[in-house]
Order: sequence, then structure tokens, then C-alpha cells
Amino acid sequence: MTESQATPPAFRESRDWLEQIVFDQAGLVPAIAQDHATGRVLMFAWMNREAVERTVKLGEAVYFSRSRQQLWHKGEQSGHTQKVHEIRLDCDGDVLLLSIEQAGHIACHTGRESCFYRRLEDGAWRVVDEVKKSPGAIYGKQD
Amino acid sequence: MTESQATPPAFRESRDWLEQIVFDQAGLVPAIAQDHATGRVLMFAWMNREAVERTVKLGEAVYFSRSRQQLWHKGEQSGHTQKVHEIRLDCDGDVLLLSIEQAGHIACHTGRESCFYRRLEDGAWRVVDEVKKSPGAIYGKQD
Repeated sequence: MTESQATPPAFRESRDWLEQIVFDQAGLVPAIAQDHATGRVLMFAWMNREAVERTVKLGEAVYFSRSRQQLWHKGEQSGHTQKVHEIRLDCDGDVLLLSIEQAGHIACHTGRESCFYRRLEDGAWRVVDEVKKSPGAIYGKQD
Repeated sequence: MTESQATPPAFRESRDWLEQIVFDQAGLVPAIAQDHATGRVLMFAWMNREAVERTVKLGEAVYFSRSRQQLWHKGEQSGHTQKVHEIRLDCDGDVLLLSIEQAGHIACHTGRESCFYRRLEDGAWRVVDEVKKSPGAIYGKQD
């Protein structure tokens, strides 16, 4: 089987779609992950070109960790992977919006559904969402 | 009337909430605007410290235009202002999520509801949303 035969139809012809994404000077593009079912915005992260390619091929969100400077397959440690239903590009071509299915319904490393769990109320950031699973339980050592 | 009396209660005590936002090296923080009623992600832009302050005081989204390097009160030209219902901060403190009411139901400069009107389909970005009002009609010269 040749490589072209092994490649899914979506990627057979060209990479024009990838070329149309405008990456910033650091080679990154912002990516917003939104819950496919509820519409809730779950998290915001960055992707480099390879992360975008892997996300599309894998069908799960792969980001680029700026702190670790490496690809980050979301959920690789926590199990909280994000199955990608749809990817959209904005008018300027420099922001991605992912409609995803969040495994465990936990996107945040704090154990909450969404990273956006603090709301501005009366001049203070108030935590308004519950921890669904403790980070210790999520990232605890495995035997 | 003293200044403290003229200042709304939310801002009387401190600016700690503003200090807790982590701005990047350029002094900016990403801001995601989501439709208050439908949950649709409408646009993505940036805010500097002053834009955040003005947004909160005004109750309408004020961004920082990186291309023009100046504050940008969304809708000042188009009339498509964004009334802010809620502002959330993410776990790292470096991304804002605004729940907004979009005047005219058009957030994009192309005349569409959302800037995210292109969807990846079969290896191409396909335009899947209609233009609700032509940019010419939106930004046309006024007598």
C-alpha cells in the first residue's frame, strides 16, 4: 500500500487548508475549545502547525504547550481527551475554534469542567464552579 | 461629591481584580466573546489593561486593536456594540471570556454573526454562514 493510499481522502489532495492558517511570529495560533453538546467554552490554548495537523489526523485536540515547548496531546496524563467534532477558522485566519466532546466532562487541570470558573462580581474574581474531581485524583501516581 | 462617592461600589475598594489578570509581554490578554443567549462564540480579540477597565466601566466590549495600536470600542463604527453580561477569567488568569449581547446579531466585519464562519470540511475551509448585512452597508459613508 502506497502512502497516498494510506492517507485519508481529506488529506490526499493538498495542504492548502493548513497554509491558510495564519500563525503568529512564534509559529502559534490560538485555539478555543467549546463543548460540542452544551456550547460552553472549556479552555483556551495554543497550537503550532504540527499540533493542528495532529489534531485533524487524530481527531483529538493536540495543543502546543508554551511552558514546556512541546506538543501536548490533551488528556494524555489525565485521560481527559477532547474528541474533535468540528474545527472553524475565523475571518482573519488566525484563530481556531474547536467543537469538542470532553472526556470526563473535565477540561481544567483544577478538576473543573471549564477553565473559566471565575466570574467578575463586585470587583472580585469569584469562583463559581465546583471541582468535579480533585487534581490529586486526576494526576495521582499510577501503579 | 467626592470621588469615592461618585465611583460605583464595584470599583470602590481596590483594583486587585485587575492586578490578577496576567497580561503578556505586549501587555495584552486574549478575550473571547460569546453570545449570551445562544452560547455561540462570536469573535476573538485582545485587550490591554485600559481596554479591560473601560469594558467593565462601560458595560460594553472595548478591545485593543493590534493593527491600529489603539483602543477599539467594538461597534463604534458599525453600531454592532457588545453589551457585556459577564466576564470570566481562566485558571491561569491569562484569558478572558465575555458573555455578551451582540447588537445587530453581527459580530464580524464581513457582516456575519460570528467571525468563525469557515469550517474544515474534506481538507478545505468551507464558508458555512451567511452574510447578514454587506460590509458596504455596515461601514458605508454616512451623510
